[in-house]
Amino acid sequence: MKCVALCGGVGGAKLALGLMHVLPPDDLSLIVNTGDDFTHLGLHISPDLDTVMYTLAGLANEQQGWGRAGETWQFMGALRALGGEDWFQLGDLDLAVHVERTRRLAAGETLSQVTRGFFAALGVGARVLPMSDDPVRTIIHTPDGPLAFQHYFVRDRCEPEVTGFSFAGSAQAKPAPGVLAALGDPDLGCIVICPSNPFVSIDPIMAVPGLRAAIQASRAPVIAVSPIVGGRAIKGPTAKMMRELGVPQTAQAVAAHYGGLLDGFILDATDAALAADLSASGLACATAQSVMRSLQDRVELARYVLDFAAKA
Amino acid sequence: MKCVALCGGVGGAKLALGLMHVLPPDDLSLIVNTGDDFTHLGLHISPDLDTVMYTLAGLANEQQGWGRAGETWQFMGALRALGGEDWFQLGDLDLAVHVERTRRLAAGETLSQVTRGFFAALGVGARVLPMSDDPVRTIIHTPDGPLAFQHYFVRDRCEPEVTGFSFAGSAQAKPAPGVLAALGDPDLGCIVICPSNPFVSIDPIMAVPGLRAAIQASRAPVIAVSPIVGGRAIKGPTAKMMRELGVPQTAQAVAAHYGGLLDGFILDATDAALAADLSASGLACATAQSVMRSLQDRVELARYVLDFAAKA
Repeated sequence: MKCVALCGGVGGAKLALGLMHVLPPDDLSLIVNTGDDFTHLGLHISPDLDTVMYTLAGLANEQQGWGRAGETWQFMGALRALGGEDWFQLGDLDLAVHVERTRRLAAGETLSQVTRGFFAALGVGARVLPMSDDPVRTIIHTPDGPLAFQHYFVRDRCEPEVTGFSFAGSAQAKPAPGVLAALGDPDLGCIVICPSNPFVSIDPIMAVPGLRAAIQASRAPVIAVSPIVGGRAIKGPTAKMMRELGVPQTAQAVAAHYGGLLDGFILDATDAALAADLSASGLACATAQSVMRSLQDRVELARYVLDFAAKA
Repeated sequence: MKCVALCGGVGGAKLALGLMHVLPPDDLSLIVNTGDDFTHLGLHISPDLDTVMYTLAGLANEQQGWGRAGETWQFMGALRALGGEDWFQLGDLDLAVHVERTRRLAAGETLSQVTRGFFAALGVGARVLPMSDDPVRTIIHTPDGPLAFQHYFVRDRCEPEVTGFSFAGSAQAKPAPGVLAALGDPDLGCIVICPSNPFVSIDPIMAVPGLRAAIQASRAPVIAVSPIVGGRAIKGPTAKMMRELGVPQTAQAVAAHYGGLLDGFILDATDAALAADLSASGLACATAQSVMRSLQDRVELARYVLDFAAKA
């Protein structure tokens, strides 16, 4: 079954890895959020693309939940000794990606081309597409004014209160080559919205003109996996953001956020009662073990999502 | 005694370190070759400034003769895995200097300002000045055409035959702030030409308009230390270049290269016979243990040079 999955960083990448293990490479396309991208120390950093790349290539640091396995921090120590900006951790291995990406972009390659080159070099077959080759930058609104995403997320450790979001550049952005074709493929069997942060991982993707319409126009069922389990986010600031936005911290609220876009919704087994309520309101729901600790968990959830889509 | 030393990379930095140990910080200014500078992977790399910085800050890899002590190569491995250009070795520690320098230059600082900031952060008191804040690039002429310096030196391992040199940009370059003031200081006690490669370390400095004239105009004696010992270069391609240029591979030929600029010349003790010949021809010469293996060697040679200058 041909599948397109929309994803952000860590949580999304885990399900993407599961899908990669279940589907032949040609049947899986990932559309990855680039709203987190930023320029730091002159380097173009694409955190979500890198998380997906490290995860799919088997290079991720599973224990830590971010970054690369075997990472070292010599660069950061030396940078600190020179008085350089050190709030964003750049590992020695990770740095190679940023330096080489920046070099290729400066040489005229698009972000899509660079991404394709990297995945090919690392031997990953699935098609991984940035949502856009044009800059879209997620801005976090707070009572003290707007914050660039990484300043909010890393430098300020998600501490500022969130009042809203905007996606600078989105109005002018075009979907990256291949994105609309993947969504418009008549053989597409499902569109998966990974258990990523709806506000800052999935919404930036939806903000690229044409993308939401292409999802709506597809005959393939759209299945989201809730990133909220038992009223808490598995990882990251999703639940905190919901609270600050005055939205209930529930899987239901996530489903409501995606609204009419969804054909099906997968909640964690612990949220079975919510699933029943949602089903009663007309949204096809299912429950699964959605907290992915092992590779086996990822593969099983991926299979479950695809089976659910096949029945939708 | 106030001293200005002109130097390139490894050999020059060794004597510079000796001078730093002998002189109070305010009495020592180094004018460093930037003709080796180049842009690689989008990073501004200043190999000679870095060698001087690592040497003076006690960060140099003494065994290896280049780079930093405790260096690691994680970045290079990861870069190679992505298909990146890997002919120029960039250590994880070293990289911090290139990334931060590039960032500061892009933010509008001059190379002098960046250099001053780095040395201050590392606690090195001596005044270290790039020869110019403007780009001057050493070009190696070969029978197969011109080569950028690092392509000749690193990528092609000094293998191409050298037919000449040029210093692109030198006609438009201005001496960096402080260079002419240091050379024009009425209290200056000596100008030292370190045992660096005359063709590609010292000549680029001399090619900056106004610099040679300032050296000639100074009342301070100009003392060179021969980089050729017993007909061989202590390090690097100096002797090979002399052979290819049809110049005798001798300390005498080095003295002749600097010509009327010199007030004194220091040869290695093993070249005592040559020293006698040169003295007979009217150039004040002295011999010393000029192969600097230990810090003690560096300090002793520095003292010897300053004593010789005091008597000149």
